[in-house]
Amino acid sequence: MTKAELFAEIQKKSSFLCVGLDPDLDKIPTHLRTEKDPFFSFCKAIIEESADYAVAYKPNIAFFEALGPRGWESLQKVLEIIPKDIFTIADAKRGDIGNTSKLYAKAFFEQMSFDSVTVAPYMGADSVMPFLEFEKKWVILLALTSNAGSMDFQLLEDEYGKPLYQSVLEKSQEWGSPENLMYVVGATRGELIGEVRKIAPKNFFLVPGVGAQGGSLEEVAKYGMNSDCGLLVNSSRGIIYASSAKDFSKAAGREAKKLQVEMKEMLERFL
Amino acid sequence: MTKAELFAEIQKKSSFLCVGLDPDLDKIPTHLRTEKDPFFSFCKAIIEESADYAVAYKPNIAFFEALGPRGWESLQKVLEIIPKDIFTIADAKRGDIGNTSKLYAKAFFEQMSFDSVTVAPYMGADSVMPFLEFEKKWVILLALTSNAGSMDFQLLEDEYGKPLYQSVLEKSQEWGSPENLMYVVGATRGELIGEVRKIAPKNFFLVPGVGAQGGSLEEVAKYGMNSDCGLLVNSSRGIIYASSAKDFSKAAGREAKKLQVEMKEMLERFL
Repeated sequence: MTKAELFAEIQKKSSFLCVGLDPDLDKIPTHLRTEKDPFFSFCKAIIEESADYAVAYKPNIAFFEALGPRGWESLQKVLEIIPKDIFTIADAKRGDIGNTSKLYAKAFFEQMSFDSVTVAPYMGADSVMPFLEFEKKWVILLALTSNAGSMDFQLLEDEYGKPLYQSVLEKSQEWGSPENLMYVVGATRGELIGEVRKIAPKNFFLVPGVGAQGGSLEEVAKYGMNSDCGLLVNSSRGIIYASSAKDFSKAAGREAKKLQVEMKEMLERFL
Repeated sequence: MTKAELFAEIQKKSSFLCVGLDPDLDKIPTHLRTEKDPFFSFCKAIIEESADYAVAYKPNIAFFEALGPRGWESLQKVLEIIPKDIFTIADAKRGDIGNTSKLYAKAFFEQMSFDSVTVAPYMGADSVMPFLEFEKKWVILLALTSNAGSMDFQLLEDEYGKPLYQSVLEKSQEWGSPENLMYVVGATRGELIGEVRKIAPKNFFLVPGVGAQGGSLEEVAKYGMNSDCGLLVNSSRGIIYASSAKDFSKAAGREAKKLQVEMKEMLERFL
């Protein structure tokens, strides 16, 4: 998917919502747990009820990987039923030396057909660039994450006072363009999103941490939105585990719609 | 596996060799490519011929993942035939927020039964610690890698002149102990291994980059060895692709033995 196509979808739906698919056997409704492929049944129902309000789906690969080969089969099936005009993110946090990253890219872009994959920057240019060589595919590079541990290294300042996450932003702009490179920017640091936007004015940001992790959607939109929105704001648990009753997917749809309505208002105010 | 058990294996075999299993359909002998499970047949033959000389095997997860679910099935079968006294490393470079890292840990430690997994440090404490909660299991944390891109961020210095990889080493010592935490330390920077050893005197190092990537085994041993060896030196391509003829596994065995003989001499000189 191209950036223009993604922006068109955002405008069509008045939404920049990404729904995180984190299927967990301990949390999905009990009536699904005995099915042959509970993860697929769960995600399918969620997708059906939320697809009108979401412009992206983000399966969290760990949740599928933890089941072994059958988890990967579920993942492939889930990916196949996501409508083709919706952006797909393999949240995998991969990254390795060149020839190995190329194989991870093949896993997510060719073996499966995700639009994008999240990548960790620690190993530098040759660990990221192999993912950027696939046409119409995207890297979503970790810059400033939303977890407590983000403070351990990402905020470490160099001799000029520049924190590591800013070096990652600046250096990586030499590797890709706003047409194939997005960044993970955590919403728990609302005040920092504006800083990131200055360094990467045209790139899309994938913003986790709104909702369960405590970030404010309004702050994200105010400080982070650019002329083609430039934001995908993720919600996982707040949507997919809104209810564990039989009508869980209806509840998920309602929560997704609630966020979409807020996002519509943000788009009207800040775009 | 405990550290004492690993050291006992090193002494028994007079070797600190880790064999990297990077099966590639374009590189494995042609007569295997038409088999039902070429990766398994290839790795099995390599393991049979090299097991006397190796104390660790390191499947590179990307190579299996690129095949989708059947790649994961091959990986599980390969893991099952590695002799139980040999240390196993899932070279996966995982790392995510806490509940997600826990699932990656379950994938490699419970769904499969690897002894260790390589982990990327960018997301900090809560992305690494879930892996450390499994008894007799190990984290091998990226510190200083052997690729060109390692210079992009790992050598960035803070205001006191301390490079990032040293902050990773120091900070992570608060999270684990030499009994469950190793580090990836690239051999292409021989002179730096001594620096790393000063910061982490008791931890094992997994050292890639000897052989095809150009590092010197003698420098690694001289600067890196500690009183219980403290080194696992990896060779992948130099062993597994020593020959593409029908007797490829014999050639792999010969290369593994050649390294073991060198390592025996290093252990006599530096241990």
